[in-house]
Amino acid sequence: MPDIGIIGSGIAGLHLGLFLRQHDIPVTIYSDRTPEDIGASRLPNSVAHHRSTLERERALGVEHWDPQEYGYFANHHHVNGPTPLEFRGDLRGPARALDYRIYLPRLIADFQERGGTFDIRAVKPETIVSLSEQHDLIVVAAGKGEIAGMFPRRADRSPYETPQRRLCVGLYHGVSYPDPKGMSLSVSPGHGELLELPLHSFEGPVTALLFEGIPGGDLEQVSGMDQASDPTGFEKTVLEKLESHFPQVRERADAARFHLTRPEDLLQGGLTPVVREDYTRLPNGRFALALGDMHTVLDPLVGQGANSASYSAWVTGETILEELTLDERFCQKVARRRADRTLSAAAFSNFMLRREAAPHLIELFSAMDGDPELAEEFVDHFNRPERIWDILSTPQRTRAYLAGQEWRQ
Amino acid sequence: MPDIGIIGSGIAGLHLGLFLRQHDIPVTIYSDRTPEDIGASRLPNSVAHHRSTLERERALGVEHWDPQEYGYFANHHHVNGPTPLEFRGDLRGPARALDYRIYLPRLIADFQERGGTFDIRAVKPETIVSLSEQHDLIVVAAGKGEIAGMFPRRADRSPYETPQRRLCVGLYHGVSYPDPKGMSLSVSPGHGELLELPLHSFEGPVTALLFEGIPGGDLEQVSGMDQASDPTGFEKTVLEKLESHFPQVRERADAARFHLTRPEDLLQGGLTPVVREDYTRLPNGRFALALGDMHTVLDPLVGQGANSASYSAWVTGETILEELTLDERFCQKVARRRADRTLSAAAFSNFMLRREAAPHLIELFSAMDGDPELAEEFVDHFNRPERIWDILSTPQRTRAYLAGQEWRQ
Repeated sequence: MPDIGIIGSGIAGLHLGLFLRQHDIPVTIYSDRTPEDIGASRLPNSVAHHRSTLERERALGVEHWDPQEYGYFANHHHVNGPTPLEFRGDLRGPARALDYRIYLPRLIADFQERGGTFDIRAVKPETIVSLSEQHDLIVVAAGKGEIAGMFPRRADRSPYETPQRRLCVGLYHGVSYPDPKGMSLSVSPGHGELLELPLHSFEGPVTALLFEGIPGGDLEQVSGMDQASDPTGFEKTVLEKLESHFPQVRERADAARFHLTRPEDLLQGGLTPVVREDYTRLPNGRFALALGDMHTVLDPLVGQGANSASYSAWVTGETILEELTLDERFCQKVARRRADRTLSAAAFSNFMLRREAAPHLIELFSAMDGDPELAEEFVDHFNRPERIWDILSTPQRTRAYLAGQEWRQ
Repeated sequence: MPDIGIIGSGIAGLHLGLFLRQHDIPVTIYSDRTPEDIGASRLPNSVAHHRSTLERERALGVEHWDPQEYGYFANHHHVNGPTPLEFRGDLRGPARALDYRIYLPRLIADFQERGGTFDIRAVKPETIVSLSEQHDLIVVAAGKGEIAGMFPRRADRSPYETPQRRLCVGLYHGVSYPDPKGMSLSVSPGHGELLELPLHSFEGPVTALLFEGIPGGDLEQVSGMDQASDPTGFEKTVLEKLESHFPQVRERADAARFHLTRPEDLLQGGLTPVVREDYTRLPNGRFALALGDMHTVLDPLVGQGANSASYSAWVTGETILEELTLDERFCQKVARRRADRTLSAAAFSNFMLRREAAPHLIELFSAMDGDPELAEEFVDHFNRPERIWDILSTPQRTRAYLAGQEWRQ
């Protein structure tokens, strides 16, 4: 029976830890924050779990939030600008957006109730080496700076050197949900995008609005505003940006009721997408596996990061069960098995960050505007980003797909 | 419907061609030899098809040689020298060794009867580029020199720069089969190995004896002898080598009846194992996929080459069926799907070529000497060399395996 050490208490580390506990494998999760710290923190993200991730949660026995109640049922898409497009993809099974300050502490409690060890400590590279002597495998699912440096960036899969969007995500009251209840992803060509999620947080059902502002465009302003110094001015500006760029969302916002839920329910910044090597050989000859954000950092625009991390945790868990020895060959197997989905999620996310949408993306969107079945199929593929990349990775592929060739398997 | 061009009419090209024809995909096989040329050639190899390859032949509808009649049922293993070891692994399904000068022409006929185009021509790198304009994909399953140079050698997977054995394989009368009818693989430490196969050839059931002589050892002599100038002396030397190194085979040879079946039923030489890149981008931007020997060249010692080629053809065929566009992403998928088995077959073959057997290999052999169930399981893994590599790639893995841990999946 191997003994596994996991650095990080995000979705990747917790899903892996819970998976392993289901198979009675000893696991310790190392975290630099207590569940209380996590619950009391600033909004960490805005994440949707797709159907396939909810299925994994069911299998892990952590489905505490019924997606029929907490979830949503459609993806609404708008491309604004001179030739507007829109399509709606009904989901074949609900997705769900939940505040991670609620989600993660609950899963930590589940993990501990099921015999997992939760160990609070700051972890540095030298800590990882010493922890590797106490476990059969170290999985690194969190960390920045020096720890991230242990897993070299893969230049062939990391096209960007800087953040491609300035981000501003907040939780708001006063925006009614679209019908059917769903997320919306809207594009304002040249300026960026808005991702809107019906999200469950401490104050109940609210709306997450994530502005993805192209540097130099009209949307980046909200990412740089100091909300604390002028809360009213900030909300006014947000409404103005909705008005100018995303009228379909603005018309569901009630200006009188519109406000940020709490000051800490706002996150502004940006991130540079990166794909790192799957594993590293430690100075003592042992191996550490990268998981979740340590393996791939994705811009949140198309909602793939957490789902990819959960999938990757699952593949890692299954491979641990099969293997006798958690050595380099084990790491290579995990790398190979998760490659298509995790690298496709990264490639698709990066593709969507181009400053100008690729013509074949517009061709696909145009085809979905007026073809609900095609749209339904496409949004279902958000569960399998490798299928999206099958369709979008080249113009030839998009055209072959649209030509109605049988899409086998 | 894609159109596929295949360079090479060995097992890789033919199994792929037959697979695609089963799905009505247009295929042309380019060969520099007619079926008659192939049938009249010098002995090209000594190849056994394991159970999993015979299953693919059944699925392809080319099982013309009933393995109950033409096949064999056990692997007999001997390690001679100061501390002799032996074990026998009964096969869970028969394997079969058949002269490729009979096998390949028959499969070419099948391929043509099923609508495949068989095109005789010499193929050079520039021919491949021009053929790539006529097909949606070019698969290169044969070729040397400049063509092989199109697929760079992977140094990380190719540990040897020179042949590790001097080879001498011939077909012989006068050697009775072991009981149960089977192949034998015997080791003479420091000198090399003998692979004995009950093989069906033009003269019916005969015995293939493949000497694998370590350079500088006592077995390499037979690889350098000129059989034509002294047929009797050659056979006498072969018998002497059996006597000195492989008494278990010698005792089944009747000196009075022992002789090479025909002068052309002898092949002497050596090969350098190599793993090449899975695919290449042609100067015109199209892609060519390496298959079979163009992808991995294996020493024949552990009988993995043809089986790996057939498997690789199958994976390639399945991936072609799934894909809309046969581009770089397609090539990467094939590469990823076949990697574990084909690279494990190469790693295992290369591992067995070490001049001195690894101690953990001897540990495993010792454990099988006296444990028929373990031996049966191990020889069955010849169908799945990735499983063999799971067990043998490190001493820790072998010990964990032998410690009787549950071997899951």
